[in-house]
Amino acid sequence: MNSVKVGVIGAGRIGKIHAANLLRLPRVKMIGIADLYANEALQDWADERGIPHVTKDNMEIIHNPEIDAIFICSITDTHGPLIMEAARAGKHIFCEKPVSMDIAQTQKAVDTARECGVKLQIGFNRRFDHNFKRIQAGVQAGEIGTPHIVKITSRDPNPPDEGYIKGSGGIFMDMAIHDFDMARFVCGSDVEEVFAIGTVLVNPVFAQYEDVDTAIITLKFANGAIGVIDNSRQAVYGYDQRVEVFGSKGSLAANNDFPNTVEISTADKIYRDKPLNFFLERYNEAYIEETQLFIESIQRNTDVKVNGNDGLQAELIAKAAQLSCRLGKPVKLKDVIALSQVTL
Amino acid sequence: MNSVKVGVIGAGRIGKIHAANLLRLPRVKMIGIADLYANEALQDWADERGIPHVTKDNMEIIHNPEIDAIFICSITDTHGPLIMEAARAGKHIFCEKPVSMDIAQTQKAVDTARECGVKLQIGFNRRFDHNFKRIQAGVQAGEIGTPHIVKITSRDPNPPDEGYIKGSGGIFMDMAIHDFDMARFVCGSDVEEVFAIGTVLVNPVFAQYEDVDTAIITLKFANGAIGVIDNSRQAVYGYDQRVEVFGSKGSLAANNDFPNTVEISTADKIYRDKPLNFFLERYNEAYIEETQLFIESIQRNTDVKVNGNDGLQAELIAKAAQLSCRLGKPVKLKDVIALSQVTL
Amino acid sequence: MNSVKVGVIGAGRIGKIHAANLLRLPRVKMIGIADLYANEALQDWADERGIPHVTKDNMEIIHNPEIDAIFICSITDTHGPLIMEAARAGKHIFCEKPVSMDIAQTQKAVDTARECGVKLQIGFNRRFDHNFKRIQAGVQAGEIGTPHIVKITSRDPNPPDEGYIKGSGGIFMDMAIHDFDMARFVCGSDVEEVFAIGTVLVNPVFAQYEDVDTAIITLKFANGAIGVIDNSRQAVYGYDQRVEVFGSKGSLAANNDFPNTVEISTADKIYRDKPLNFFLERYNEAYIEETQLFIESIQRNTDVKVNGNDGLQAELIAKAAQLSCRLGKPVKLKDVIALSQVTL
Amino acid sequence: MNSVKVGVIGAGRIGKIHAANLLRLPRVKMIGIADLYANEALQDWADERGIPHVTKDNMEIIHNPEIDAIFICSITDTHGPLIMEAARAGKHIFCEKPVSMDIAQTQKAVDTARECGVKLQIGFNRRFDHNFKRIQAGVQAGEIGTPHIVKITSRDPNPPDEGYIKGSGGIFMDMAIHDFDMARFVCGSDVEEVFAIGTVLVNPVFAQYEDVDTAIITLKFANGAIGVIDNSRQAVYGYDQRVEVFGSKGSLAANNDFPNTVEISTADKIYRDKPLNFFLERYNEAYIEETQLFIESIQRNTDVKVNGNDGLQAELIAKAAQLSCRLGKPVKLKDVIALSQVTL
Repeated sequence: MNSVKVGVIGAGRIGKIHAANLLRLPRVKMIGIADLYANEALQDWADERGIPHVTKDNMEIIHNPEIDAIFICSITDTHGPLIMEAARAGKHIFCEKPVSMDIAQTQKAVDTARECGVKLQIGFNRRFDHNFKRIQAGVQAGEIGTPHIVKITSRDPNPPDEGYIKGSGGIFMDMAIHDFDMARFVCGSDVEEVFAIGTVLVNPVFAQYEDVDTAIITLKFANGAIGVIDNSRQAVYGYDQRVEVFGSKGSLAANNDFPNTVEISTADKIYRDKPLNFFLERYNEAYIEETQLFIESIQRNTDVKVNGNDGLQAELIAKAAQLSCRLGKPVKLKDVIALSQVTL
Repeated sequence: MNSVKVGVIGAGRIGKIHAANLLRLPRVKMIGIADLYANEALQDWADERGIPHVTKDNMEIIHNPEIDAIFICSITDTHGPLIMEAARAGKHIFCEKPVSMDIAQTQKAVDTARECGVKLQIGFNRRFDHNFKRIQAGVQAGEIGTPHIVKITSRDPNPPDEGYIKGSGGIFMDMAIHDFDMARFVCGSDVEEVFAIGTVLVNPVFAQYEDVDTAIITLKFANGAIGVIDNSRQAVYGYDQRVEVFGSKGSLAANNDFPNTVEISTADKIYRDKPLNFFLERYNEAYIEETQLFIESIQRNTDVKVNGNDGLQAELIAKAAQLSCRLGKPVKLKDVIALSQVTL
Repeated sequence: MNSVKVGVIGAGRIGKIHAANLLRLPRVKMIGIADLYANEALQDWADERGIPHVTKDNMEIIHNPEIDAIFICSITDTHGPLIMEAARAGKHIFCEKPVSMDIAQTQKAVDTARECGVKLQIGFNRRFDHNFKRIQAGVQAGEIGTPHIVKITSRDPNPPDEGYIKGSGGIFMDMAIHDFDMARFVCGSDVEEVFAIGTVLVNPVFAQYEDVDTAIITLKFANGAIGVIDNSRQAVYGYDQRVEVFGSKGSLAANNDFPNTVEISTADKIYRDKPLNFFLERYNEAYIEETQLFIESIQRNTDVKVNGNDGLQAELIAKAAQLSCRLGKPVKLKDVIALSQVTL
Repeated sequence: MNSVKVGVIGAGRIGKIHAANLLRLPRVKMIGIADLYANEALQDWADERGIPHVTKDNMEIIHNPEIDAIFICSITDTHGPLIMEAARAGKHIFCEKPVSMDIAQTQKAVDTARECGVKLQIGFNRRFDHNFKRIQAGVQAGEIGTPHIVKITSRDPNPPDEGYIKGSGGIFMDMAIHDFDMARFVCGSDVEEVFAIGTVLVNPVFAQYEDVDTAIITLKFANGAIGVIDNSRQAVYGYDQRVEVFGSKGSLAANNDFPNTVEISTADKIYRDKPLNFFLERYNEAYIEETQLFIESIQRNTDVKVNGNDGLQAELIAKAAQLSCRLGKPVKLKDVIALSQVTL
């Protein structure tokens, strides 16, 4: 089996994480990295790791004939166009979520990848988390019978800064989108209808951008199950990422991950340390595994674990949640689709 | 301090539990018990316990001049009229939930008790549960700052039989009403708006009575917090009663109660026994405590811990949930109040 | 079935607990209570509960022809003689642990009860604890195969005062004796050899009475299993009572009991409240059950759950531990028996 | 800072793990690997990883002037001589435990390394485990006051095969030695006296080699604390590695590590998956960290985290435990030292 040659577009935090994880894999070669702001520091970073090409021009990476696969880690606005460009250049594509803020564009990007016969994996890394994989496997194996209720708790330890909030696309598209994908993943079903309530309790700055920082989203699934997600931009005790699926024969429930299992008993109380701090710590192994499995799907020519439709569906739910929260009533995904088509 | 003399109306399961708990209290005398179906077996039961009067006539109990306080444990339809009769007779009243299926009638009963200057306690026994008391105390003490999200999981181990379902008033009025009171209790705030989705996944018989067996209810509280309750009529692993309050400074989360703390590790898996079976086991101590505190509120002439307005508010939320589930859109409590007044 | 009429000797804390528990049982009548220091307060206490006889003379209770069963709750020195007197008077006997500090005397008391054909139950209340019962049942049912290792953690929240220490008989006879009985109970086997190390780390006052406050005791069981107990007179986080049995097919491990299941997560740490404070809280239900089952064994004429030999064996282990700790080497129970016989 | 050039002696499982971990470290170069049975497969393995030298001759590695540090991962018999050879060649040394089965030889090897001014780190990898590090840090920081009792549970999932048992040096030198080091590590004190009982309950084959498979070891520490370790060669539920330190102000207790946090509730029971299977899974991160910190101690010229004396002390405790188990009485470390000197 030949090595897979990879180029990365976007050398921010997540781009560098993927690059570092790729460098550890056998039969993978990092060929180049592109970033609009590529500078000497990035050149040094690449040199230390033996990555030959550093460029400011994404096209140099996409059209490099040596490269088999592209990791798109640049800002969201660029995802759709880059997917299409890379797909037409015959490259396999790993793209960070969301594909775009615009359903029609996402649809077009996903279609293009399919038409060009290249693999497209979306960066829903949480599917590769040891806890959530276990839940999904249990549901799929019938360990709890038919799913009835899906419950997801997803709270960040700290809100992002104002600059980030401004361009984030809002809590549903930026943060809850992971939970929407998780809901589909563990339930094994698409979502048909969404009701969302949201409020600003953490920081008034969210209100300035017509965003909320605290939300509860109710879901109706195509398979008849119902679900609920609660989100907060600030859990002071740390990253809170729990999933529960309740079914006809029982339930599967994942608690958080902790840095250690030590319980400390004192005259005052019984305590333990806070959970793993944030996504880099909590999903460290999941990032490694999503990269590895993407490469394997190329090497073995198998389906990717998170495909373009998964990206599209999560975005549809996010759009429905946005609408629902503003309108104060439930929104069906088919209506979001209809609305999106109008704008095409 | 003199003894409180008590009469019980309704000698079903819950009536007998209250009687048994009252018999253990110091400075309480059980004077009589009334039941439409009073028979020899009930007479024997009363004789063994030294309860002098057994009758088929509720009025004999209510108008017995020896009696200070009445426990109303008969069927729901009778609660409202009995409260009014007892209040006018100057008796203190403990009434099982709900006061009635009709908001206007509940309002009238509560008003009558207040006007007559008698104490009225509603049987929301879960407020006296060791876990939920701890959560409420923590919230009140500011242990987690301002409440942002209230989450309640409430699932019965087994669905009731068809006869019960028929007259139950539906999942929201019969089962979730406890959770609605719990939500108000732990959040320290009234509820303003409700959105409910429900479905039939456990047993088709629920559909025959326009009822559901699986539901998720979203709440908006007056204090700005939001909340969610999920209900199922059947959790095969046992009675699932968990509450979580998430706030600006942390969270308080109660797990279920178990018959023992033993963890068994085998070649197959690590396991423990199922939770306490159902409400009689789980809330055994809570039933004792609600009775005891009601008696004390009479002896010390203090406010009861769960008053008529608590009964009314929970019923309003239940009505709103019923409406929301049927209409497929959120319902405000003030609209339920308006609608109820129309039917007066 | 006729009522069992009971007299209690010793109106200290434990005597009153047993009396209170007996008063709640159906078909039991409390006839009298004796205490060397019986006074007006005790008379009032008895009057409130409808106990007809109060006396300073134990013999009045033992030889009261109306009484069927005697609870011996007086100081340890009196246990042996009172058992013999009561047995000869044909009364069934419940005796607090230990029977005596002297093996030969315990043997004689146990033998006398047997010869007189009366029931003798020893107050090892922990056998009736919900957690430890579950472990014993699991071992007996073969849930973990053949027992290999028994581990008991037993630590008091606070050391007793100096007066108590002085007459306690030392940590092994006073405190660890419960653990010795527990070891036999959960392992389903007698102990053959003991090695104990002890030290004074909590309070130097223990050293004044040739006692220790911190100890580890290793056990060899007749069935081939081995075991270890660790004791401390002071666990600042509260009463620590855990038992684990490890066997060929797995392990059974009981954690402590807590006042609630609530987990509190804050910016600082994840905590819960301390365990149930001390034996009165932790073993409340166990005290009720040991009393109830003793009464039932009389009513049904069945064997008691903790018999004289159980009392004797625990004392033999305690003696062996005392000796081992002083000699700095392992001690066999048969040598303790031999030594005891010499003193006869 | 220059790269550290490393050679590995012994290409068995643990040698390859260290090599793999070293290959991932920045500023480390793997120069060569020696193994008595080096063959084509090893050559391929080395080629794939870019390790230039493969040899059957340990001396080629030790005397390779390019190499700065040696990892000794060959069989125990060779450790002592190789340490001395490498030390004299001026190489820093990482040596797997135990240094030797002979105290005098260990002493000599440790002395030689010190005299030659090279670093010597012993492979007690568990000191780098996330749970046990937390306990040690808590003890050191005074989180639980003065240590009173150290408790270690250490049980393997499966016994080794007969060939391994034969040359293992026995349960105390082979398996419990890790726990002896852990006891010193978390207690922050040397051990002065040991009492061990052992028995054959898992597999009679252990008896053939005068070995045991189940043991309890009691320890007296120099700082006044006492401790207990229990060992079994077979815990069917998986690798059981728990540590607890109890002190004047509380306790620190580490539970096992699990592959996920998922709790599964069914009609039958509440369960979770078994703990991480064995040392390769459980201590994966610890192996990486011990390697990394050894390299850093060379780069920064700081003390190693586990030095020669740590190796020596653990072996002394193991010898004392062996003696104690055979003699049936406690053994002091100073007597083991005296005995060892006699054999010099």
